[in-house]
Amino acid sequence: MPAPDNSLRIRVLLAKDMPFGPGKADLLEAIRETGSIAAAGRRLGMSYQRAWDLASAMNSHFREPVLAPAKGGARGGGSALTPFGEEVLAAYREIEVLAAAAVAEKLDWLRQQMVRE
Amino acid sequence: MPAPDNSLRIRVLLAKDMPFGPGKADLLEAIRETGSIAAAGRRLGMSYQRAWDLASAMNSHFREPVLAPAKGGARGGGSALTPFGEEVLAAYREIEVLAAAAVAEKLDWLRQQMVRE
Repeated sequence: MPAPDNSLRIRVLLAKDMPFGPGKADLLEAIRETGSIAAAGRRLGMSYQRAWDLASAMNSHFREPVLAPAKGGARGGGSALTPFGEEVLAAYREIEVLAAAAVAEKLDWLRQQMVRE
Repeated sequence: MPAPDNSLRIRVLLAKDMPFGPGKADLLEAIRETGSIAAAGRRLGMSYQRAWDLASAMNSHFREPVLAPAKGGARGGGSALTPFGEEVLAAYREIEVLAAAAVAEKLDWLRQQMVRE
């Protein structure tokens, strides 16, 4: 489930050098859907190097892998979300939903303060 | 009042090309405290050009100015938050507080999934 809309972006600092925001969440989701880091990166307009770096950072900072090699991809070298990766992604998406609900009223007020276009 | 800690960063999209996040909020706060855009930019490690661009974008996108010329700065060329600018800043800080409270439990869970350092 993607974020409800694009108007609220949340980045959480999970450890000293481990921010987690829309980029990593979208990457996990795209890997689940495409079955590979390379294809996920392409879908998101991310370089292969960047997609790989983000995936690698997640796998090394979480206490369990969020991604694992998947058999049977197009050339047999795919990746899949682990069950733990699914939990992590779901937790972040829930954070987005909870935050959006909590701030809706104040955010509406701020939007009403903009110049009418 | 600054954000409670640095672990949650919120960026809201107020209009098509008007994101509002920690950078603009911190700039407003630093202008209030230093009395000038230049001094605020220096305090935040932001170039003068960037500080000026952010200030200008805010003044042109909000329905009223958030900043106004202030008399009596060091060389008479200072800036101050308008009462409306104070309201905008307070609304954003409240959004940070509301979001932090709403996501605290899920965020704790995510943090507990990190490798112990």
